[in-house]
Amino acid sequence: MNWLKTSLTERLQIRYPLIQAPMADGITTPELVAAVSNAGGLGGLAASAWDPEELRAAIIAIRELTDKPFAVNLSIPESVTEDTSQIEHAKALLAPYREALGLSRTELATYQLPTFAEQLAVILEEQVAVFSFTFGVPKPEDVAALKENNIITLGTATHLLEAILLEESGIDMIVAQGAEAGGPRGTFLGTPEQGLVGCIALIPLLVNHIRVPIIAAGGIMDGRGISAALTLGAAGVQMGTAFLACPESGAHPKYKELLAEGTEITTVLTRVFSGKLARSLKNRFISEMQTCEAELPGYPFQQFLTQAICAAAIQQERPEFMALWAGQGCALCTSKPAAELLKTWFGQVWEILGRD
Amino acid sequence: MNWLKTSLTERLQIRYPLIQAPMADGITTPELVAAVSNAGGLGGLAASAWDPEELRAAIIAIRELTDKPFAVNLSIPESVTEDTSQIEHAKALLAPYREALGLSRTELATYQLPTFAEQLAVILEEQVAVFSFTFGVPKPEDVAALKENNIITLGTATHLLEAILLEESGIDMIVAQGAEAGGPRGTFLGTPEQGLVGCIALIPLLVNHIRVPIIAAGGIMDGRGISAALTLGAAGVQMGTAFLACPESGAHPKYKELLAEGTEITTVLTRVFSGKLARSLKNRFISEMQTCEAELPGYPFQQFLTQAICAAAIQQERPEFMALWAGQGCALCTSKPAAELLKTWFGQVWEILGRD
Repeated sequence: MNWLKTSLTERLQIRYPLIQAPMADGITTPELVAAVSNAGGLGGLAASAWDPEELRAAIIAIRELTDKPFAVNLSIPESVTEDTSQIEHAKALLAPYREALGLSRTELATYQLPTFAEQLAVILEEQVAVFSFTFGVPKPEDVAALKENNIITLGTATHLLEAILLEESGIDMIVAQGAEAGGPRGTFLGTPEQGLVGCIALIPLLVNHIRVPIIAAGGIMDGRGISAALTLGAAGVQMGTAFLACPESGAHPKYKELLAEGTEITTVLTRVFSGKLARSLKNRFISEMQTCEAELPGYPFQQFLTQAICAAAIQQERPEFMALWAGQGCALCTSKPAAELLKTWFGQVWEILGRD
Repeated sequence: MNWLKTSLTERLQIRYPLIQAPMADGITTPELVAAVSNAGGLGGLAASAWDPEELRAAIIAIRELTDKPFAVNLSIPESVTEDTSQIEHAKALLAPYREALGLSRTELATYQLPTFAEQLAVILEEQVAVFSFTFGVPKPEDVAALKENNIITLGTATHLLEAILLEESGIDMIVAQGAEAGGPRGTFLGTPEQGLVGCIALIPLLVNHIRVPIIAAGGIMDGRGISAALTLGAAGVQMGTAFLACPESGAHPKYKELLAEGTEITTVLTRVFSGKLARSLKNRFISEMQTCEAELPGYPFQQFLTQAICAAAIQQERPEFMALWAGQGCALCTSKPAAELLKTWFGQVWEILGRD
């Protein structure tokens, strides 16, 4: 059997059944996205934090570097409730960090999330090949508009019920996010725990019940992980952490240094950065703030409150205050260019599984 | 390549690179252990709760059913601290459950754990083929005695540091327990979170750093999971939950019924039964007690306190109060006999990976 000919490679007309995971905070630069697409995978741009014009500029920048398909990822809007006293309490808890970074104690700008409808309009106008999304299901009219424009939709599920909902909504393919994955948990139904299933258990269950292609994500770091995902029944993989230390990645050099430490690093699930449960390398900010995690406001309020702290941490090169998103496979990160990684990994897949 | 010829099958002279996980509470009956060994895998008996004479009787019972090798599993003794006020508080919290089950409110027997040295003496005397263990590393003199008796040692690690310690202690093979696994977490170093790594991330890291065979455990339910573990570099798999619903398993019929419900069931990590973090199907006892989980005493005190409750729950057929250990793959449980399962799974492995 030809392991590289899957419903994912057939549908997207790409060489390798690999999607590079969209990673926020500018990690998925146009250079990284284009490098992966040019190397035969599908690059992915994280754009949920961006205004329509920033998003359009990034799409144009990618197209200057590649004529291959790529994905743009947005967050599905969620209903949120603002709890003023909780926010004030969190401000007090965060004050020492603002001080440590020399940020004014009083200035806490009000932020606003970009409008999903405007972001989606850019994706439709620009005829992006693949629209990927997290944290829910788009409205039926949005799914219809994407279909009319022949844009392939790629949803994110963390357990079977979410996958069923995505399939019933007419989504073309589903990323199954295992508990190993770095960054925010995509869980949008049920308890957080329900959505923390490891890939080796999650993929076969989804493959048994879902007809659209299932893409495995979480903890996959090389040809061994890719081979495992394919034998579990996945149509392909989505890999993020494995690209973090690439020269094309926008991760801060100090962040890449920590990843290079290899075996000594541990990831934790935490809400302290954004209010959403997410996996990050453990650092001082997490260790200290975790004790009062239950008192913090939800997404996006906690994210608004920590935004200046994370930005200043990057500027001042202080990884102890950065959001260092990483999956459980992070000890296997390497700093090779993306194209070389794909070549190496699929060479390993060939050795492990053979082509025929 | 012959995927069924691994360092595990070679060393144990067994047909399939599969160990049936030892499961406490009488689940791994002599019938189950013998059925797996007779079918070409390695059966495993959970014996840590047993007195030397119960253990010897079980070994004899297995040997009446098979002449093939099997493993006996014990818990490495841990140093524990008794906190009387915490125990009294837990008694008060548990009183309503004792009442619901018609147990006397005052009678709380003092239990004692069997002596490890006496248990190990039986294993040495009976010349059991494989000694498997959890929650630590045996003393050097015990490792030496096992080696002198040509008993193969099989330790349990949940992260790299534990695996390194086991290897340096001269242990022959290491079970890498992924976060997906049912029952108690084997973590004995560092934080609980450090030991909650999914198989797809854990196995390749251990294989890179450890020379002795690595056996993958957690979330593996059929030939797809076995194939995935082998492609990740494991020398074999240890499967527990996949045998829970077998006719040979000693799990309560109500427990097997819940497993048969398939897609609707969720597992949670909880300390409420034994004081040790463990993965179980979510039931009423867990849901209610989880809110005060931090107030409960550690292992083995919480286990002593819940022992009568769990026993009465089994006797009265009330799964809402049972410890329903299960891994994250539990929705894929089937009720076929163990021998049939092995045949089916390795047929799938053959289809997926081929023999050559």
